[in-house]
Amino acid sequence: MRNQKNRRDFLKNSAMLSSGVILGQAHSLHAGPPKKTTAPANETLTTLHKLRTIHGNFTDQAIPDDQIEQILQASIRAANSSNMQTYSIVVVKDREKMKRVCQYQGGCMLLYCVDYNRIKASAASLGHTYYPDSIGSLVVAGINTAFAAQTAVIAARSLGLDCLTTNGIHRGNMQRVWEILDLPKEHCFPLIAVVIGYPTQEPDHLRGRLSDVGVIHRESYHQPTPEELETVTRQYDNKEKHIALNDSWGQQGHKHYLDWLFKVWLKGAAKPTEKETQMLRMLKQCGFVEA
Amino acid sequence: MRNQKNRRDFLKNSAMLSSGVILGQAHSLHAGPPKKTTAPANETLTTLHKLRTIHGNFTDQAIPDDQIEQILQASIRAANSSNMQTYSIVVVKDREKMKRVCQYQGGCMLLYCVDYNRIKASAASLGHTYYPDSIGSLVVAGINTAFAAQTAVIAARSLGLDCLTTNGIHRGNMQRVWEILDLPKEHCFPLIAVVIGYPTQEPDHLRGRLSDVGVIHRESYHQPTPEELETVTRQYDNKEKHIALNDSWGQQGHKHYLDWLFKVWLKGAAKPTEKETQMLRMLKQCGFVEA
Repeated sequence: MRNQKNRRDFLKNSAMLSSGVILGQAHSLHAGPPKKTTAPANETLTTLHKLRTIHGNFTDQAIPDDQIEQILQASIRAANSSNMQTYSIVVVKDREKMKRVCQYQGGCMLLYCVDYNRIKASAASLGHTYYPDSIGSLVVAGINTAFAAQTAVIAARSLGLDCLTTNGIHRGNMQRVWEILDLPKEHCFPLIAVVIGYPTQEPDHLRGRLSDVGVIHRESYHQPTPEELETVTRQYDNKEKHIALNDSWGQQGHKHYLDWLFKVWLKGAAKPTEKETQMLRMLKQCGFVEA
Repeated sequence: MRNQKNRRDFLKNSAMLSSGVILGQAHSLHAGPPKKTTAPANETLTTLHKLRTIHGNFTDQAIPDDQIEQILQASIRAANSSNMQTYSIVVVKDREKMKRVCQYQGGCMLLYCVDYNRIKASAASLGHTYYPDSIGSLVVAGINTAFAAQTAVIAARSLGLDCLTTNGIHRGNMQRVWEILDLPKEHCFPLIAVVIGYPTQEPDHLRGRLSDVGVIHRESYHQPTPEELETVTRQYDNKEKHIALNDSWGQQGHKHYLDWLFKVWLKGAAKPTEKETQMLRMLKQCGFVEA
């Protein structure tokens, strides 16, 4: 959350650099899942294995309206608690507005908000009361909202579009998001922005992932052993795996990628949080944290 | 969250009933999106429009291991902040265990947890410190975790499997989830369980959705007008749309479905929350709410 502009610039620059520098290690974007698994069994799995993030390097080309509608109608098919659809999706095509809201620009932005206002208004219109005023309301609606957002991302990818899902809305003065989009002050919280667009250049590789120890556990939780943690460190260091956010940590004098991650990228979180953050203040203001 | 067993029984019973009762209004599960939109442009969109929830009526048939692995490897392709993968997925095949954890049973359960323990252990192993100790850490990792979970749901559906995503883990004494699965006490929070399985019977219809006013907003937020709220009420009442959770609200003496929803289903939330909930207490205990 700290050093925001630096973060964005870094990601943009490293995306640029990588197009030239990392070409030798690149694997095809259409190669499917890692070798140890079998090939995707169907087109949907192939789409999922093609998921990738474009860090704001989108052209200014607009997304065709019919594709936006296809993405929206697919998005709302995501499961949601009691079918109450406690979210709002604000579709923003105005490029200046999307930049002010989420710090990025693309062909279109879908802002996914946890939102109980329609359901509260329905209750009031029929003479009922409904209080989504505890953190459980935030958690359950947050899951529903994120489910819908990820479904939109997958729908967009299936149409050959690219996405950036960003919490840029939570950086800087968050109040601006409410003001720019006229969001209700209570029980509405902007959770994640999905920027959809056409990349200015094709990425050379898919970002890799840790795919076993410390991520996937069998029947019960397994704390990684010191040896397993060494393996994790080596996986991040392995440039062919593309798990790291950059390849320049070595040149910057770090022994391991994770040294760079903790010393540079996450340095703002090296000490305990001492006072109430903006986010907790905003969540209280929205009525999502009970007394 | 209240009347939990009643809720489960209700959903199970209404699923059974609906198989006989609602057949006349059923539309094909393979009919694609609503008529007002164009047909899905590709197989992935078709899969998304086939998403459906099975409310615990799964057979006891196990999911083949290779399909579980395909689902997991697709799931981790979801975008995540700084590629830190701050989640854990606990794969549970033991049917008794999954029931105790999430109150449902199926062929397999994937428990998606917000989890900073691997990344914290990596930091410690290299001599660094990292404090994910504010609510922002919960929110950002919660989004990542939900993205991965929804991707698993879509992967499963593409393989012809069905899912229930449930927050049954948050009902009853939540502490049991930590105990049964040996979860770390700090900075790990079970967010959502994905139960995967084979339904005991095919549902007759897909659940409908509100798809415009109060859900999708254009360029800025639009508060529904009284007339629009009446339309929303009528949409829930329209049995051909299948947006309601049941068709029996009229027989129970309610004028509108939403009357049933607020008076019966959501009656526990008709008054303001007066004291700290279990969830807030657990989140504090996990270190996700700063002082």
